[in-house]
Amino acid sequence: MPAYPPATVGMPLAEVDTPALILDLDVFEANLKRLKESLAGSNVKVRPHAKSHKCPQIAMRQMALGAVGVCCQKVSEAEALVEGGVTDVLIANEVVGARKLTRLVALAKQARIAVCADDPGNTDALAAAARAAGITLDVLVEVNVGANRCGVEAGEPAVELARRIASSGSLRFAGLQAYQGSAQHVRKVEERRAAIEGAVAKVQRTLDGLRTSGIACPKVTGAGTGTYMFEAASKVYDELQPGSYIFMDADYARNDWTESGIPRFEHSLFVWTTVMSRTSRDRAVVDAGLKASSVDSGMPKIADGGPAEYIKISDEHGVIQLNGAAGYEVGDKLKLIPGHCDPTVNLYDHYVCVRKGQVEAIWPITARGAVW
Amino acid sequence: MPAYPPATVGMPLAEVDTPALILDLDVFEANLKRLKESLAGSNVKVRPHAKSHKCPQIAMRQMALGAVGVCCQKVSEAEALVEGGVTDVLIANEVVGARKLTRLVALAKQARIAVCADDPGNTDALAAAARAAGITLDVLVEVNVGANRCGVEAGEPAVELARRIASSGSLRFAGLQAYQGSAQHVRKVEERRAAIEGAVAKVQRTLDGLRTSGIACPKVTGAGTGTYMFEAASKVYDELQPGSYIFMDADYARNDWTESGIPRFEHSLFVWTTVMSRTSRDRAVVDAGLKASSVDSGMPKIADGGPAEYIKISDEHGVIQLNGAAGYEVGDKLKLIPGHCDPTVNLYDHYVCVRKGQVEAIWPITARGAVW
Repeated sequence: MPAYPPATVGMPLAEVDTPALILDLDVFEANLKRLKESLAGSNVKVRPHAKSHKCPQIAMRQMALGAVGVCCQKVSEAEALVEGGVTDVLIANEVVGARKLTRLVALAKQARIAVCADDPGNTDALAAAARAAGITLDVLVEVNVGANRCGVEAGEPAVELARRIASSGSLRFAGLQAYQGSAQHVRKVEERRAAIEGAVAKVQRTLDGLRTSGIACPKVTGAGTGTYMFEAASKVYDELQPGSYIFMDADYARNDWTESGIPRFEHSLFVWTTVMSRTSRDRAVVDAGLKASSVDSGMPKIADGGPAEYIKISDEHGVIQLNGAAGYEVGDKLKLIPGHCDPTVNLYDHYVCVRKGQVEAIWPITARGAVW
Repeated sequence: MPAYPPATVGMPLAEVDTPALILDLDVFEANLKRLKESLAGSNVKVRPHAKSHKCPQIAMRQMALGAVGVCCQKVSEAEALVEGGVTDVLIANEVVGARKLTRLVALAKQARIAVCADDPGNTDALAAAARAAGITLDVLVEVNVGANRCGVEAGEPAVELARRIASSGSLRFAGLQAYQGSAQHVRKVEERRAAIEGAVAKVQRTLDGLRTSGIACPKVTGAGTGTYMFEAASKVYDELQPGSYIFMDADYARNDWTESGIPRFEHSLFVWTTVMSRTSRDRAVVDAGLKASSVDSGMPKIADGGPAEYIKISDEHGVIQLNGAAGYEVGDKLKLIPGHCDPTVNLYDHYVCVRKGQVEAIWPITARGAVW
């Protein structure tokens, strides 16, 4: 981690060093409110995904607006969140391996912790770890609702795993994790809606099986920014897990949102960068490359960039094709909208929080690098 | 940064938590020696690029084997290297902006520091910062030798900037930075060789212009792992800047090396990962995704993977298509070869250094996240 931070509180944005991760607080707060308002009158709870932000300061603000807790993906992320004051964390993912399970059950003594599972050997290991720690651990069964990644198949396989958890003696069957991840970035609203209808049918079949087997299902949790209003309307989801709505990235902005019921979340997260070279009439080179913005979902976009386009990235450089745009002289600073927020956030140690052109706060990204 | 490290010294590799960045010390040390041996009898100096490893422990080992110093790309990287004991750092990049220049000249009082420039306004700012600090700063002119990124054009434009530097009063013209970055990953040896011949011609033209103008050129520096033997043989390069040779990534391994004179560097850097889900006969899911391995140059490869292939990545998951491979049960651990080492290293805080299956050391990646 660099010895000096890119900014100090009170500094004008223009003086913030680059590359830096800038959070526009007005837009960020408006996004938090948009989510809440979009669910007004609904009984569905919100448990935002903290894998997007990795920051207790943001988790606390989400909970202050009614979130019941947060999700994350890794034990080390959950540790950072609990250390930062978050009292309720669902690890919406499988946790495998002796060292991780030891940490998991230790953490479950400090906060309300739940975890997902899709494998009987793993639930046996979870049960043994919980027993050794003298706790009862909440475990959700992850159901494959269409993403074909993790998760047991819907219906009987899910019921069987729930039964194993419920009868373990040291685990509590805490519900179904049913996240349709492959639907979130599908561009057309109707295709996203259809994917969630498919997910809902799988969840419903599993709920029917659980009922037949006499196993109570405390909740169904899932959904993301791209689809959450469909899960909210489904009557089978109790809890939603959107993450990216707070920031919005260039890739999510390419989705069609018309008549989805999902509000127009706006870009609040930017990579602040400087033009470092301008030796050609047609191109400028900026100081934010692969170590400053993830490109797995495409190049960063220039905020208010006019015709200029960020066309090529290398480790520490970005090439901007000007296409006739004025400006972009050496030393000029500009905002980039990351292609994909989550892995971009994971590159930084701090959010430089800006309001009306001035640094208001610096929030540490304490779960940055928390991959295990 | 996570509260607990993924490994402790003395631990068997099998117990190291995942994902973790594993450095195989035997292979790493062999790569260091291969580079040295490949240049035996040559007068060309080696200044390895530390942007690949971001670790003073590695820089010191490179210097112990004869490197004259290291390169890096950012002031904050240089600070981390100097803090770790490195005495000679070339920032092989433009440094722009008042805050950065203040740090740069302060650092130049603590170690031998040089920087590159391609813009007269920037060299004037460098001169003013050096004057204010009461130092003479070494500045190299970056020449565009074919990559069309940063760098002034060869010949007169480069000479003109060198003259401006030499006459500034507080800067010393320290030579030419002439890195042909776009040649490094060209697959065919002959095409890489031809690209470097083009670069050499541009450097030669610039050297001729400098001589005509009576400006002494202390050195020409450049080259990368993909081409350095061509620059070494050129008679115009004095110093080589390979970085990736210590690790080798999956993308560099796709280059043809036959009759290049460049030794077969072997993979020493791996992402250690665990199978976390195995709910299908055909696929396994591992716990290393986008936050554990950069995919800008393609998916990670499975080391000793047989027919299995890492085919799909998301933030915290990787999907492995088994193609009939045995094993890959929940809890099994495996090594991935990153697609691109540099941005992958930048995701981690530590190298877990392993020899013959046991953790021998843990080296902090102190310049991780040092992007400004």
